[in-house]
Amino acid sequence: MNFDISKVLSSKAIGSATRWSGFPPYHFVGGNIDEQTVPVDGLAAALDKVLRAQGHAMAKYGMDSGPQGYLPLREFVAGNLERRTGMTVTADDVLITTGSLQAMDLVNNLLLNAGDVVVLEAANYAGALSRLDRLGVEYVGVELDAGGMRVDRLAEILQGLKEQGRQAKYIYTIPTVQNPTGTIMSRDRRLELLDVAGKFDVPVFEDDCYADLIWSGPRPPAIHALDTDGRVIYCGTFSKTVAPALRVGYLVAPWDVMKHVLPLKTDAGSGALEQMVLAEYLPRHFDAHVDRLLPMLKEKSDAIVEALNENFGAAAEFTPPAGGIYIWVTLPENVDTRHLAAVAAKAGVAINPGPEWTVYGDDNRHRMRLCFGHPSIENIREGVALLADICHHEFGVPVRSGNVERR
Amino acid sequence: MNFDISKVLSSKAIGSATRWSGFPPYHFVGGNIDEQTVPVDGLAAALDKVLRAQGHAMAKYGMDSGPQGYLPLREFVAGNLERRTGMTVTADDVLITTGSLQAMDLVNNLLLNAGDVVVLEAANYAGALSRLDRLGVEYVGVELDAGGMRVDRLAEILQGLKEQGRQAKYIYTIPTVQNPTGTIMSRDRRLELLDVAGKFDVPVFEDDCYADLIWSGPRPPAIHALDTDGRVIYCGTFSKTVAPALRVGYLVAPWDVMKHVLPLKTDAGSGALEQMVLAEYLPRHFDAHVDRLLPMLKEKSDAIVEALNENFGAAAEFTPPAGGIYIWVTLPENVDTRHLAAVAAKAGVAINPGPEWTVYGDDNRHRMRLCFGHPSIENIREGVALLADICHHEFGVPVRSGNVERR
Repeated sequence: MNFDISKVLSSKAIGSATRWSGFPPYHFVGGNIDEQTVPVDGLAAALDKVLRAQGHAMAKYGMDSGPQGYLPLREFVAGNLERRTGMTVTADDVLITTGSLQAMDLVNNLLLNAGDVVVLEAANYAGALSRLDRLGVEYVGVELDAGGMRVDRLAEILQGLKEQGRQAKYIYTIPTVQNPTGTIMSRDRRLELLDVAGKFDVPVFEDDCYADLIWSGPRPPAIHALDTDGRVIYCGTFSKTVAPALRVGYLVAPWDVMKHVLPLKTDAGSGALEQMVLAEYLPRHFDAHVDRLLPMLKEKSDAIVEALNENFGAAAEFTPPAGGIYIWVTLPENVDTRHLAAVAAKAGVAINPGPEWTVYGDDNRHRMRLCFGHPSIENIREGVALLADICHHEFGVPVRSGNVERR
Repeated sequence: MNFDISKVLSSKAIGSATRWSGFPPYHFVGGNIDEQTVPVDGLAAALDKVLRAQGHAMAKYGMDSGPQGYLPLREFVAGNLERRTGMTVTADDVLITTGSLQAMDLVNNLLLNAGDVVVLEAANYAGALSRLDRLGVEYVGVELDAGGMRVDRLAEILQGLKEQGRQAKYIYTIPTVQNPTGTIMSRDRRLELLDVAGKFDVPVFEDDCYADLIWSGPRPPAIHALDTDGRVIYCGTFSKTVAPALRVGYLVAPWDVMKHVLPLKTDAGSGALEQMVLAEYLPRHFDAHVDRLLPMLKEKSDAIVEALNENFGAAAEFTPPAGGIYIWVTLPENVDTRHLAAVAAKAGVAINPGPEWTVYGDDNRHRMRLCFGHPSIENIREGVALLADICHHEFGVPVRSGNVERR
């Protein structure tokens, strides 16, 4: 080989991957779900039916539905959102995307120039933060409490920006089962958020990726459903309810926004088979599927809570999840979870260190996110026990043996 | 609605879509293929089998194959490329992409900064040109002749850039059934191209989207197969052989390039179902499928050639296609194909005007690209006849009635 690519890489191409080596034995990262819950037989039956009936249309980019995606799926999404979130939208307001990640990329391309500033929850989805970093967009983190984003702080932050002559390009929020904190923003606080957004005339980008997965307590209406100004762009996904590898999400926006989004979706369409199978399978099965899923997730949530209590004792602080697939854990301040993650990785345990999931990493060096969606209950127990051992070995906490303080 | 998105759009969000209204009656644009050729039953049977066997793994991003895509499909692609193109690659050199469009986006992100310059065929895929425009990358068009890119001109252009202190970031070529000209670059000329690329130390981005669709003459080895420097990045697709709406393409690069590409593929994976079904279906059926497809495409090619001859007479110059799904037509110089396209669109005929498919639009105002992959033979005949009438009405050519000169 004579040619050396490293001399001609773009300024964006700074990363260098290592060869993939599969999942570690204790895999508490990544947003994966439980293999047993993928409704394989139902999907197979649905796909066989719809593929034989509609498959010929795959000869055309966009099939017979055009750039917004398979119409029957958009119709299902609109109706499903109405029932679950109170949103009143039609298929015309829906864009099927290749995962909600693409919805995020589209919103970012729609609104953001390098040097812009956005406002978002101070603990957040690492993929959202890394995208903003790559775009050269600044972000200000709003503190959260047990009820999600502190809207009083949001108002202060927006006012502060205004006084500097700056305007946030959007408020990004994951209000229902927030990633990573798991908080759920109340209806009242959502109205307050809209009030603040209106006062500063900032759009709201609402990400409802985990919102179907609540097993404890009511699901508040979507912020989009409470908005009367047309200032909310909404996204959701089927990754966490059906299967992540399908890559099917959706963006919801009125036409005056959608018409500017469509020219940015330059991929000639998202995958046809996934759209067809979900349009065929979900109308009759989605509710029952989610109803089956929730107790299984709760069981895993209970298992990780129990494992953390048993193995970390008072050293681990957390709120037991009310939904979703993550638990956000605070360890004693002497614990550096980046270091913990590195050592744990060598022992086959993958965890997410707090600094990668927060805006102000220095304040969160002792926090970690664990995903319980994928591992089995036994695996959860073993993995958390092993993690506690490693933490003890590296940092002296939790204290072990006769000295373990139980919560 | 109080919120006005138009005030906060990014500098990229300049487009505004119109509502989709379906395909026009005579649809000679878009790279779509014939609905009858989508192997629906075969795909359905394959998908049922593989989904039931492997579908549980969709619970994990990347399934059990990691970020380069479903391993059995990569294995098929590697073997298929060896048989059809002479390339010697393994599954590790293959990245499954969401259509070859994503492969193009990845290569562009890998290598290009705004202000860079690339070199490519002077008649080209409009999607390639628009991407470079959006990236703020300059491009120089190399003239083509009946054998594809003029490599003598390529050398002159690269030399000219060098004298300006500039280095082309890549040479982009569609050497086998070029889009839109349909030319096929000979093996000798490919070796010359590699020679020139080596002399100026420029990488080559080889796009083989249409290369499986040759019915007349031999298929030369891929430039990638002839390269000994590791300077060729290759992409292909199943869009034109199986179905565009599946969105399955592939990028081929050695690890020292692939390792820089992977961090740029931030979509958490391409659609699982398409990858699974093609991995199951293609090994036993791809060759037979293409063998069935080629005579059907040739029939349509013959039909459009005949229709152009009958209706345009000497006014239409073109080379009958040796493969692919497009024909590139030169009309008399007084014809403005942009205006022709606008008038024809109102009459229900969609064509691609030359200036949108060439680097130097002014020199190509009298050329047009027609896609014959999708319409039926009857539709081709009617559409071309209608187009000729419109052209006569607008520009006085072709001359009609007793004066029609036949080729």
